[in-house]
Amino acid sequence: MKYFPILNTLRAYRLETGRDDLIAAITVTIMLIPQSLAYAMLAGLPPKIGLYSSILPLMFYAVFGTSGSLAVGPVAVVALMTSAAIGEVASIGQYSSVEVAITLASLSGIILIIMGLFRMGFIVNFISRSVTEGFIIASAILIAFSQLKHILGIKMTGHNLYEMVVSLVTHITELHLPTFLLGGTVLIVLLITKPLTRYFSPKLNLINKWQDFLPRAIPAIMVIITILIMNFSNIGNYNIDIVGLIPNGIFDIQLISFNDSLFELLIIPAALLSIVGYVESISVASRFAAKTRTHIDPNNELIGLGAANIGSSLSGGMPVTGGFSRSVVNFNAGSKTPLSGVYSACFITILVSGFMGFLEQLPKATLAAAIIAAVIGLIDIKKLKAIWEYSKSDFILMLITILVTLFFGVETGISTGIILSIFMYLYLTSKPHMAIIGQVPGTEHFRNVLRHEVQTIPEIIGIRIDERLYFANASYLEQELFHLVSKNQLIEHCILMFSGVSDVDASALESLEKIHEQLTDIGITLHLSEVKGPVMDKLRSTNLVKHLNGHIHLSHFQAVKELSAKYDSHKAESDVYETNLNPFK
Amino acid sequence: MKYFPILNTLRAYRLETGRDDLIAAITVTIMLIPQSLAYAMLAGLPPKIGLYSSILPLMFYAVFGTSGSLAVGPVAVVALMTSAAIGEVASIGQYSSVEVAITLASLSGIILIIMGLFRMGFIVNFISRSVTEGFIIASAILIAFSQLKHILGIKMTGHNLYEMVVSLVTHITELHLPTFLLGGTVLIVLLITKPLTRYFSPKLNLINKWQDFLPRAIPAIMVIITILIMNFSNIGNYNIDIVGLIPNGIFDIQLISFNDSLFELLIIPAALLSIVGYVESISVASRFAAKTRTHIDPNNELIGLGAANIGSSLSGGMPVTGGFSRSVVNFNAGSKTPLSGVYSACFITILVSGFMGFLEQLPKATLAAAIIAAVIGLIDIKKLKAIWEYSKSDFILMLITILVTLFFGVETGISTGIILSIFMYLYLTSKPHMAIIGQVPGTEHFRNVLRHEVQTIPEIIGIRIDERLYFANASYLEQELFHLVSKNQLIEHCILMFSGVSDVDASALESLEKIHEQLTDIGITLHLSEVKGPVMDKLRSTNLVKHLNGHIHLSHFQAVKELSAKYDSHKAESDVYETNLNPFK
Repeated sequence: MKYFPILNTLRAYRLETGRDDLIAAITVTIMLIPQSLAYAMLAGLPPKIGLYSSILPLMFYAVFGTSGSLAVGPVAVVALMTSAAIGEVASIGQYSSVEVAITLASLSGIILIIMGLFRMGFIVNFISRSVTEGFIIASAILIAFSQLKHILGIKMTGHNLYEMVVSLVTHITELHLPTFLLGGTVLIVLLITKPLTRYFSPKLNLINKWQDFLPRAIPAIMVIITILIMNFSNIGNYNIDIVGLIPNGIFDIQLISFNDSLFELLIIPAALLSIVGYVESISVASRFAAKTRTHIDPNNELIGLGAANIGSSLSGGMPVTGGFSRSVVNFNAGSKTPLSGVYSACFITILVSGFMGFLEQLPKATLAAAIIAAVIGLIDIKKLKAIWEYSKSDFILMLITILVTLFFGVETGISTGIILSIFMYLYLTSKPHMAIIGQVPGTEHFRNVLRHEVQTIPEIIGIRIDERLYFANASYLEQELFHLVSKNQLIEHCILMFSGVSDVDASALESLEKIHEQLTDIGITLHLSEVKGPVMDKLRSTNLVKHLNGHIHLSHFQAVKELSAKYDSHKAESDVYETNLNPFK
Repeated sequence: MKYFPILNTLRAYRLETGRDDLIAAITVTIMLIPQSLAYAMLAGLPPKIGLYSSILPLMFYAVFGTSGSLAVGPVAVVALMTSAAIGEVASIGQYSSVEVAITLASLSGIILIIMGLFRMGFIVNFISRSVTEGFIIASAILIAFSQLKHILGIKMTGHNLYEMVVSLVTHITELHLPTFLLGGTVLIVLLITKPLTRYFSPKLNLINKWQDFLPRAIPAIMVIITILIMNFSNIGNYNIDIVGLIPNGIFDIQLISFNDSLFELLIIPAALLSIVGYVESISVASRFAAKTRTHIDPNNELIGLGAANIGSSLSGGMPVTGGFSRSVVNFNAGSKTPLSGVYSACFITILVSGFMGFLEQLPKATLAAAIIAAVIGLIDIKKLKAIWEYSKSDFILMLITILVTLFFGVETGISTGIILSIFMYLYLTSKPHMAIIGQVPGTEHFRNVLRHEVQTIPEIIGIRIDERLYFANASYLEQELFHLVSKNQLIEHCILMFSGVSDVDASALESLEKIHEQLTDIGITLHLSEVKGPVMDKLRSTNLVKHLNGHIHLSHFQAVKELSAKYDSHKAESDVYETNLNPFK
């Protein structure tokens, strides 16, 4: 059962569920056909490869995956990464782009399945959402730019923003007016449909379903309209670039020839592509799981996506994943189980076997417009602003990810973001926040003397340490604590409040022992308070605790109460810091 | 002044300080001569290179360094890393070992100076002490093994423990008895001197100084004795391997020919060697600084060590650093300022110019014995045991560092250790400890219900989160919190105690917003308590706080007091968990 979630689905499958899945499948199919053609083109592949990647992967995911809302298939960001990998390998010149795409899909499938079997789904947790956000924004910009050539009808090259802009400026004079008029019109129609329907539907009393459905169906409608225009007008004489001949048959069954050297070349791109694809997929799947109170297993999802990619490579397709936009549609259209993917796959098979010839005259400009309209929605300015306002360090991280992705490519971009976010975290934790604390009058609560109006006793210093203590902050702790304590001659007791210390590793223990030694030397007694259970478990048998010149107290209040008994005469003169009790401080 | 600390030293220099420095310099010189010869041999270089590396580096460090106790020069671990780098480059066969050593020294000097100028001394904080400990132990074992060939008088090859053991077993039959007798005797004498003097000195009423001095002088004494034996006995006929001709002159002034390809080959080894050397140096220097209440500046130390390495490369020497054993001797012998290094350098110059010829007959076995005796002291079994008892994760880290260093070489070993320690930290912080808390009776203090006898109210759940919240634990937090709260139908209020949360990054904020949304959906009010100032500063303007369905409370006690008012009737029946008030829990 564990590895075949479909068995659980089938056992509980009912007629109503089937109906819901079927309706969702129809909606998704209408989006999937133009998108799959477009994303194949974006990857630098013949558009038919997109269709090949939209049948078996959906079926394979249904068998192994657990999300009822995820719509698997070619997606924009993964297509962009595929295009980057093809570009890199192309410089060697030995392999066809289709061969590279198929190998990427099979490698990606293998990597995802291995990660799933070894339960390594947790790895994605180490990718900060600021990095993901930045990467998606940059990818959207790169994708939109890369498609301009089809809309302008010019030749344009380059794998980063700089190269593309230079190429655009160089070739702009070659603008092909008929292509531009067609592509521009389609793009404008696609872009204004959503705001227009939203604006007019209340006035025209459109039911909600139509309000949602129209913007989603519009790419498919534009595909049909432009094909009709190409077929039944004289526009065909103007040399507008078309998709061209799509051979009969649903897909090319490929027996992957395991090409060692190609595997080696593609292993890093495939790994990055797998992780990015998985992050996109799991974040959308878990969002819907939370909404429907259902459960998805990250490791089953890895296996499901891995199987989908193996399916894609078997049918001669490109890497796939669970895409954001189609999944949203799938969810809103009422999809309940992964079986809706199977229905979509059937619809595509039928449509494609019957109407393959019809797609031949589809202008590439239509697909390019569909891509641009889709990715523009990924750029979330509000989110950017919110991150800027909330955390400058997160914003910087995102900005660097965006810039590196734009100017040094997708693989460098995502890797830089991941590595940098980890270093930023390490750096932040290497200088822990420490506060000298005093008692909030009338309570047993202790807070920072600089932010609150609190009472302190000159002979006793209370210091709250706000970080897990580990090797990277061990030296800082040592220096800072000694500095804080030794600058005041009156101090006889130092109480370290450990309420914020979730662990003390061996390096930090060594530092604490040194601090204890140094404080003992200058006649100060060291106490600990509010040490958490798991930390105390470790500390109990150490020399620090065995030979501590002070005590370990359950609460900071108890520590101060006990120690202050002999300084009671001072209590009247205790310092009160000039701040207020506002909990926001 | 900032970059020339020697000016400060000279301004305050007094006669007594000079006397102290001079006495320390004599002691250090006596150790330095055999050690510098031995470590050059360990690095696979002609022994004279060790002497070349013991003059200019000491002078240069005195100008730029800040530690009054650090004894700079060739040290065992850095010599081992030099030998590994030479071994790697040797396979290319184009460069002499001396050329590689000089290039390493100059590269290492450049790297250290750049790190110092950019104030990157903090980088060493990211090396866990467990990793350093493991690396030193493994290096000691590798070094001791590599010297066996000189004591046994056999040919032995290999750069890791496995290769060396295989080679030892293969060649053991070629054992050269005279060498073995000589080397073995010297080794035994060296190993037993320290325990013997310690044992006999109270009985013979030896003054403390002699008790300390004898074990340190014994390597130099053995050097002299074995040279005398070689010169004035017929043992010379037995083909014992000797150091051989050392050319006149103090050092070869080298004008480094900047060899691009050699620089490229050696940049990684040089960087690792610089960092390891700096860690050894800074840890011993800061230990003495703490003891003497003086200050050392990590960034000045980087520049000082960098200058020392530049000095070494200029005089045709090998990479140097501040070594542990000689620095301890220097400190105990009373050295006060870096000028003691200048005096050592002068002594070595005088001794070497006068007695170079005398060293010619020195058996390599004597040096090998000196190395083995020195590095055995680095293996600290007590420390190993202490780490095992304190923290299994630190121990595993150390063990992996030891094994990888032993079997895959020093560079792989130290890199693996560093990377692994960072990943282990990230992994540990990715699953934060959370505790359901209740009120310790009679206090305003709240502790884990599983460890303490505390009072709770069924309608209110208090959860203490014990970790900085960031991208790697954001998803875990989301799942775990929802799980904890939703499994109990009675709960109406959830109070998250943020006493252990030192930061919330943008990813974690998103998760908190989702948790808030989910809890609102199931009718639970979310509160926060004891949010630290810096965290509150960030949270204040977020949607989470603006739209929070509950409140933010100064202390957890206040939160519970306020909320429990309406549940007062329950208070009598509140759960009391069966544990006790022991603060050790």
